[in-house]
Amino acid sequence: MPSCAWLLALSMAALTGNFGAVGYERTERNCSATPPYLPSTAVNTTLQLQELRAQMLPMNISAYIIPGTDAHLSEYIAPRDARMAFMTGFTGSAGTAVVTQSKATLWTDSRYWVQAERQLDCNWELEKDVSIRSIAEWLISEVPQGGKIGFDPFLFSLNTQENYALNLESSNRTLKSITVNLVDQVWKDRPQLPPDSLIRLPDRVIQRSWQMKVEHIRSVMKDDPYEPTALLLSALDETAWLFNLRGNDIPYNPFFYSYTLLTMDEIWFFVHHDRVTEDLKLYLNTSCNGPMCVQLKNYDSVLEHLKTYVDQHGVKVWIGTEYTNYALYEIITPQDKLMTSSYSPVLTTKAVKDETEQKILRDAHVRDAVAVIQLLMWLEKFVPEGKETELSAAEYVNKCRSKQKDSRGPSFETISASGPNAALAHYSPTEETNRRLTVDEMYLVDSGGQYLDGTTDITRTVHWGTPTEMQKEAFTRVLMGNIEISQTIFPSGTRGVNMEMLGRRALWQVGLNYGHGTGHGVGNYFGVHEWPVGFQSNNIPFKAGMFTSIEPGYYKENDFGIRIEDIAVTVPAHTKYGHNYLTFDTVSLVPYDRKLIDTSLLTSEQLQWLNKYYNTIRQLVGPELDRQGLREEKDWMLKNTEPFAESGSSATVCSSPLTLIFLAIALLHNII
Amino acid sequence: MPSCAWLLALSMAALTGNFGAVGYERTERNCSATPPYLPSTAVNTTLQLQELRAQMLPMNISAYIIPGTDAHLSEYIAPRDARMAFMTGFTGSAGTAVVTQSKATLWTDSRYWVQAERQLDCNWELEKDVSIRSIAEWLISEVPQGGKIGFDPFLFSLNTQENYALNLESSNRTLKSITVNLVDQVWKDRPQLPPDSLIRLPDRVIQRSWQMKVEHIRSVMKDDPYEPTALLLSALDETAWLFNLRGNDIPYNPFFYSYTLLTMDEIWFFVHHDRVTEDLKLYLNTSCNGPMCVQLKNYDSVLEHLKTYVDQHGVKVWIGTEYTNYALYEIITPQDKLMTSSYSPVLTTKAVKDETEQKILRDAHVRDAVAVIQLLMWLEKFVPEGKETELSAAEYVNKCRSKQKDSRGPSFETISASGPNAALAHYSPTEETNRRLTVDEMYLVDSGGQYLDGTTDITRTVHWGTPTEMQKEAFTRVLMGNIEISQTIFPSGTRGVNMEMLGRRALWQVGLNYGHGTGHGVGNYFGVHEWPVGFQSNNIPFKAGMFTSIEPGYYKENDFGIRIEDIAVTVPAHTKYGHNYLTFDTVSLVPYDRKLIDTSLLTSEQLQWLNKYYNTIRQLVGPELDRQGLREEKDWMLKNTEPFAESGSSATVCSSPLTLIFLAIALLHNII
Repeated sequence: MPSCAWLLALSMAALTGNFGAVGYERTERNCSATPPYLPSTAVNTTLQLQELRAQMLPMNISAYIIPGTDAHLSEYIAPRDARMAFMTGFTGSAGTAVVTQSKATLWTDSRYWVQAERQLDCNWELEKDVSIRSIAEWLISEVPQGGKIGFDPFLFSLNTQENYALNLESSNRTLKSITVNLVDQVWKDRPQLPPDSLIRLPDRVIQRSWQMKVEHIRSVMKDDPYEPTALLLSALDETAWLFNLRGNDIPYNPFFYSYTLLTMDEIWFFVHHDRVTEDLKLYLNTSCNGPMCVQLKNYDSVLEHLKTYVDQHGVKVWIGTEYTNYALYEIITPQDKLMTSSYSPVLTTKAVKDETEQKILRDAHVRDAVAVIQLLMWLEKFVPEGKETELSAAEYVNKCRSKQKDSRGPSFETISASGPNAALAHYSPTEETNRRLTVDEMYLVDSGGQYLDGTTDITRTVHWGTPTEMQKEAFTRVLMGNIEISQTIFPSGTRGVNMEMLGRRALWQVGLNYGHGTGHGVGNYFGVHEWPVGFQSNNIPFKAGMFTSIEPGYYKENDFGIRIEDIAVTVPAHTKYGHNYLTFDTVSLVPYDRKLIDTSLLTSEQLQWLNKYYNTIRQLVGPELDRQGLREEKDWMLKNTEPFAESGSSATVCSSPLTLIFLAIALLHNII
Repeated sequence: MPSCAWLLALSMAALTGNFGAVGYERTERNCSATPPYLPSTAVNTTLQLQELRAQMLPMNISAYIIPGTDAHLSEYIAPRDARMAFMTGFTGSAGTAVVTQSKATLWTDSRYWVQAERQLDCNWELEKDVSIRSIAEWLISEVPQGGKIGFDPFLFSLNTQENYALNLESSNRTLKSITVNLVDQVWKDRPQLPPDSLIRLPDRVIQRSWQMKVEHIRSVMKDDPYEPTALLLSALDETAWLFNLRGNDIPYNPFFYSYTLLTMDEIWFFVHHDRVTEDLKLYLNTSCNGPMCVQLKNYDSVLEHLKTYVDQHGVKVWIGTEYTNYALYEIITPQDKLMTSSYSPVLTTKAVKDETEQKILRDAHVRDAVAVIQLLMWLEKFVPEGKETELSAAEYVNKCRSKQKDSRGPSFETISASGPNAALAHYSPTEETNRRLTVDEMYLVDSGGQYLDGTTDITRTVHWGTPTEMQKEAFTRVLMGNIEISQTIFPSGTRGVNMEMLGRRALWQVGLNYGHGTGHGVGNYFGVHEWPVGFQSNNIPFKAGMFTSIEPGYYKENDFGIRIEDIAVTVPAHTKYGHNYLTFDTVSLVPYDRKLIDTSLLTSEQLQWLNKYYNTIRQLVGPELDRQGLREEKDWMLKNTEPFAESGSSATVCSSPLTLIFLAIALLHNII
């Protein structure tokens, strides 16, 4: 699944896309009509705006910024963090709202403009340039000289704060950090935390106990020449990873609200106490005070405790700038008490999976393949009957996954997209846009599961009728991109961003391309977009044992979308002369649609890779299908993993040997 | 030719390299001996140190930093800017010296450690970690608390200053900018400026007059949303480009000392007046004051004039941060009078050659190919006689180039390297290291010429005897890298750094690699390393009409070195579906050593590219050889550009068609 950030470019291109089976009733607001027209989907926000403005007055701020994220800068947020949605009515996953005493404005990107016009009432204006620069320009025009602009520093990253500050510079408007969130003050029925206790991962999925992890991270701190005395963990998967714990605060991600402050002598675990059972307290060794005792601190006390720590003499706190909010950052003063890196050593350590993690993540992909094969077989069978839709397919794959061992639900909202809907790369079907699946359209399904032993993410694109030549060519070239990355050999330490063009090269050859990134890390029962691994410019260099998606695509506006996504792990490559080289081993195990592959475009090496991969699917998924007694699925899998004949090798590549055949024949005739 | 910056990594690896035919007499200093031993190459620096220290006293500085660059942050510097060499005796091209009242220390990288030990006297210590951090640590240990560290802000880039400041932060030592250079105060016989007048490029090599260029740059300024009122040009090729002028202040580069301040109404040209002839004054329209009149200002008055300009109300000066020195930067205050980009619009405009520039740069490469072909033929003939050396070969190619039309000398110091010397990628032969050329060693020659119509840079690697299998494989894989980049098709706007792995991929496949960059821009009778074009991370995206070197290599320590370097221009590629795609067209026109090419490793596409390239050499260089009456060279060229047979296609690629042949034969036999 391509992550949000990459998709902006593509979405801009797909802006004019068809939104499916929308009725003729006007679904968007019209605030310039008299009286203003509001569809039934619009939310009346008059009251909350009134109350928020009342909160703003004593704070002496002229504007208040409401971002769409949480205090951990999470990709998915819990309902209780949906402050932007509460204030605006708009439920899209990306946006920023700003309220002044007289105006209220929402910024969101092109993917959500239609949705915003359906959900906003006429209290709100919609702005379409989502850059911080554009928001700052608006602020300068609306806030008087000398005015203050309030924001909740827990919801700003360092970069966000810096970016606003830079754009407001020398404008005589200043930012004011207010640690009490003003929206929360007026949000009376703000959702509670889920009451569920945290869970501890079973031993069978763990190689390193939390004590081993703590010891390792402390050794990294000790070896660092800048001599940090403490490490502050802010991203939700950092603390969860360190203690081998999981929770359910965030949709799709088994995370729970938490921070950790780790020093050489102490471990402070900031969490909602009532969610830590007695068993867990024993497990965490909470009744003592030594270096291997976890001290439970209330989640909401992190600022206060951090302040107390920083006030001491001779301390230096290490933070990862990508995931630490501005509230924590701003109290680490003076500057020489702060040490920064883009990612904390927990994130960089977690990026390399240990042997057990590698094994179980591979295992999860075998079971996941069974679910996806079930879906594809079912669709092939029932789509021609004309009753299946994008939504029913998404539901079916969720059901198939839920039956697999250790299933913990989907890892993100399934992208089930037919025909033109698939050209919108971030599309997920709704009742309004839901499209019937037919043999006349290409279909793209990008889905994944959470399992106790791993997180999966796979995309397949299929056609149940007769694809056009262009569709075949585009699909084959996307596949060539996937294979070219997968089979390349590279020195350990190479950055993904410097190799990702291999995923595009076969498309470029004929003037095609795609507007999103080429891959992201995945976790072990964790985030489906796990930074900092992948092919983006802010990803870290590849080492052995990292899992990443490889997902080139091609999108033809108003027509179809193709994406082929597999998860692969970096493994040592044995080369003739060198050491410390890596390559990828694909762990997603579902065959590609044969009908869409034009083998004449593939090089012999690509064909060999494909046949080897198909053989691996047979070797690994075959026994699992047997074990689950899925005979029909086994047959389907075998049929779809038949090796391809080599004869298809590109005409230009083998023209002379082919000429030789005729020559030989001619020669023999002469001899005769 | 690989530029300095890239070579550090490689040089570190080659550190233990053989320095050739060095005698047994001790050539390096030994300061711990009693009395200290100094070779005859060491320079006595006692006097200049004494005098510099006397200069430092009234300035109230504890240390003085002496960088090895000039006020334009040039790659090559004029003798009068060789302050570091004057102070230390060390003449290497990279280093930093620092002097306190009791100590004097030189930092230089591994390429120069031996040379430094030969040239320094015992007044100097040698430090080997050239990072600014390491220099700052030394300063903190030598300069007392509260002490000031002097530097000439003309010789610091913004980044250098920032880097020192960062590393000295909270150490209670501060930097002090001193605009009068203290070394110059004690350098009595500092070389004079060359007396020569500037020259104006002849009309036949110009498409855009200086007036057209000024107009264009003003339109870029006008369109910029930050609304700059002036553009300051600091790099030497910026002013030279703008006015279509050239000079001879810097070795190998036809540059002259200059700055330009361009506003909408005025053009201030800072230059040494006496070098501007009456003719040039007419050409530059210096007798008036309008927007298209060039006002001559003395070179040394730039600071003062800039200050006067900045003091005005409502002005904003645009500078390119990569080439503006700290002296100019620091007087542009307050912040809102400054506008920055990495490169000025002159550098980004210059990066795209106009039609005339493209044509003449191609023309220059045809004549340059004649010179290189002459060299290669001559070596092939005379090396077996055993009298030729690295130095005689370098001299020969210079001579060949000097006979070509519009020749203006070499564009850099020729790298002529045999056997193990070629493993030192930055090596240039000296009397001491000079190696005899033999049929038993590989030979690498990286050279280039300045012509009135263009600058060239080409590397060929040859073997006159029997290369080993490994040498052939490595050479072929380097060539494959060159071809893979050259023939790739990519969207306009792609960054070189994201494609340069294509130059390494065939090497990576067998565990080989190289430690330098893959290519740099070149100019039209300008710098041989012309930023910001190329494959480095700080290069700008490719557009049509940019010239870059493509130069993968492979270096086997103490054994041999391979580099294949060609200049190529980005040209539009016609693709089946897309628009705005580019590819490379190679403009260097010299065949590769056939003996070193294992065609069985090449794909059919690579072989086709090679044959097409060889045909282009025949088409373009053939007539030029004819015109110059070089019959023997023509024969040599024809022999060395014979098309390769396709039969070599990799065995794996065509295994099945070959099987088919036998099948067909067998079948026919049966039929019979």
